[in-house]
Amino acid sequence: MDEFLLSQNLRRVCNGEGDSTTSSSRSRQIILVEKPQTPYIVLPSESRFHHLIQRPHFAVDIGGTLCKLVYTTVCHEEGSDRPEVLLNFKKFLNIEMCLQFLKEEWVQRTEEDSLQCTGGGAYKYAETLRSELGVRIARTDEMQSLIQGCDFLLNNNEDESFTYHHEAEGIEKYQYKPIASDLVFPFLLVNIGTGISILKVNSQSSFERIGGSSMGGGTFIGLGHMLTKSNDFDELLFMAEKGDHRKVDTLVADIYGGDYEALNLSSEVIAGSFGKCNKFSSNQELTARPEDFAKSLLLMISNNIGQMAMLYGNRYNVKRIYFGGFFIRKHSITMRTLSYAIKFWSKGECEALFMKHEGYLGAVGAFMANLS
Amino acid sequence: MDEFLLSQNLRRVCNGEGDSTTSSSRSRQIILVEKPQTPYIVLPSESRFHHLIQRPHFAVDIGGTLCKLVYTTVCHEEGSDRPEVLLNFKKFLNIEMCLQFLKEEWVQRTEEDSLQCTGGGAYKYAETLRSELGVRIARTDEMQSLIQGCDFLLNNNEDESFTYHHEAEGIEKYQYKPIASDLVFPFLLVNIGTGISILKVNSQSSFERIGGSSMGGGTFIGLGHMLTKSNDFDELLFMAEKGDHRKVDTLVADIYGGDYEALNLSSEVIAGSFGKCNKFSSNQELTARPEDFAKSLLLMISNNIGQMAMLYGNRYNVKRIYFGGFFIRKHSITMRTLSYAIKFWSKGECEALFMKHEGYLGAVGAFMANLS
Repeated sequence: MDEFLLSQNLRRVCNGEGDSTTSSSRSRQIILVEKPQTPYIVLPSESRFHHLIQRPHFAVDIGGTLCKLVYTTVCHEEGSDRPEVLLNFKKFLNIEMCLQFLKEEWVQRTEEDSLQCTGGGAYKYAETLRSELGVRIARTDEMQSLIQGCDFLLNNNEDESFTYHHEAEGIEKYQYKPIASDLVFPFLLVNIGTGISILKVNSQSSFERIGGSSMGGGTFIGLGHMLTKSNDFDELLFMAEKGDHRKVDTLVADIYGGDYEALNLSSEVIAGSFGKCNKFSSNQELTARPEDFAKSLLLMISNNIGQMAMLYGNRYNVKRIYFGGFFIRKHSITMRTLSYAIKFWSKGECEALFMKHEGYLGAVGAFMANLS
Repeated sequence: MDEFLLSQNLRRVCNGEGDSTTSSSRSRQIILVEKPQTPYIVLPSESRFHHLIQRPHFAVDIGGTLCKLVYTTVCHEEGSDRPEVLLNFKKFLNIEMCLQFLKEEWVQRTEEDSLQCTGGGAYKYAETLRSELGVRIARTDEMQSLIQGCDFLLNNNEDESFTYHHEAEGIEKYQYKPIASDLVFPFLLVNIGTGISILKVNSQSSFERIGGSSMGGGTFIGLGHMLTKSNDFDELLFMAEKGDHRKVDTLVADIYGGDYEALNLSSEVIAGSFGKCNKFSSNQELTARPEDFAKSLLLMISNNIGQMAMLYGNRYNVKRIYFGGFFIRKHSITMRTLSYAIKFWSKGECEALFMKHEGYLGAVGAFMANLS
């Protein structure tokens, strides 16, 4: 995790909640403080949000791997005459952990309240959620929610989106985009959850799903577990940082003995991911460590996503490509690979844009659905 | 392996050689007879080939995973006044096995003879080949050789290319393309070796490499070995045939509990490859067998190649997409997945074309280089 982003994540919020992967985070919060946390947002002072001072509002996006929750709390700043409504972000590894948190946190709920739901789990777990919580279930379409959430965040949260520049130093790596320039339609939204959905967004209310892929975050954690035994996404990313993919991948140098000059392919280019993992591939024993597998896997998936995003961008003549979903996690290798792939394959024409609340677009969209 | 193609492969050739993965195939040939073999070709009776009746000619394509060899033998048919020159096809798992075969088979070689070489190994192993065999090394560019080989095979070998129709019965699955209609430029050649190269072929002598990917045959055998312990490509394909990817992959049904109707995605669509392989993905223990992993892996890689090929086809407005390289091996799941992906993502506009000598395009191109 990048130090700059980590320090931002460590800003404390009014009620002390942040992003966590445990169900009972209160007691363990201190030891988890170094885990990346997603910064809260102060909701704008608009009439549609005023009633949230009296009653909290919850929305959940239940995907194939994670449950993403957004919910309001109220912050009474000293010297201010009006309390602020904060939007908080929290993710869970399964529906049970999420339900447990909702039961504890959403104390004054009645059967008049609604839980805003999106993602596949809004269908699959609708009855469970209704009966366990005793509230109504208000469902919104997953893709529609992604767009609505993306739209709200880009329009209302300063410094929501940024480009990543690996070669720069410190905070210079992140070039934030001002709000005014963000919503130039059309743009692509590549949402990397368990798998991938690629949406072309034509306006605030019009979009189409132009493509998808089964190689996303679910593939990273699934294959990552098979290759390293780790079950933790962030641990896998941490391992990837320390890994050397050249122990695992077949490089151009392994085939050509150097560069492939006729095609201008450097000796370091990955010719075949995991190409060194079968016993006939070289005369040497495979000496790869779990970290090396994690790095190779992250590069394979990130490169593939970047290349596919660029091809769709090119096909629809769209230059701006936003990335959402819980795969990226502001991880430097991932952002660097995606940015590089987009730039390389589009010959500099397309631009990869990342979002601070990348994993919560759907949940934020569901949250907004019945407020406007 | 499909029965129809297998029966074709079992046709015996004059000198009894076929495709094998062992170095000393002569003694083991009987037990390997059920392995898929690549049919020989009778070279056309053109003057450029006449001298091959006196001296054999050898060409090798040394890639990141396999060595592909083509070489001539002579066949004296009873009642015919002129012997036929046959082009034979053989692959090896490494350069040592290939060298051993060359030493045994190429008996009357002198330092005036040339071994035609292409692929990265033509650079990396040039000195080894020269000193071990005592012949000259004549090198041709890998991409140029692919195109030349593809061109020769499509123009000279009847029934070289075909489309695959999984829903049909028996030999109806294969719709062969007559020679005359084959060379409609431009077309795409997607060569799936260790990794992938995507070439746009504009004419017999003009092409450009428009894309590539590191997810090819090297990834299948490499990750396949890590997941199943198998080291044999054909065994992995055989396992895939018996596997159930639904034990490994997250399907739309696993997220939605059924279809995702708003997007017209069936419950059986793979949402996330290997999504069930981490312990938090479901409450149930993973019950997957090695066969299930092999199937999931084959589908993930094939789907990805098909989708990428279609995107490049679309970008360059090319409707005909040929597949080469040793990944496909006329395997029904692979051809079905590639054909389906091309058709689905192009809305029926593009067509996947397979080739009988798919793995030998580069070697054939190198073979032809100094004969014309």
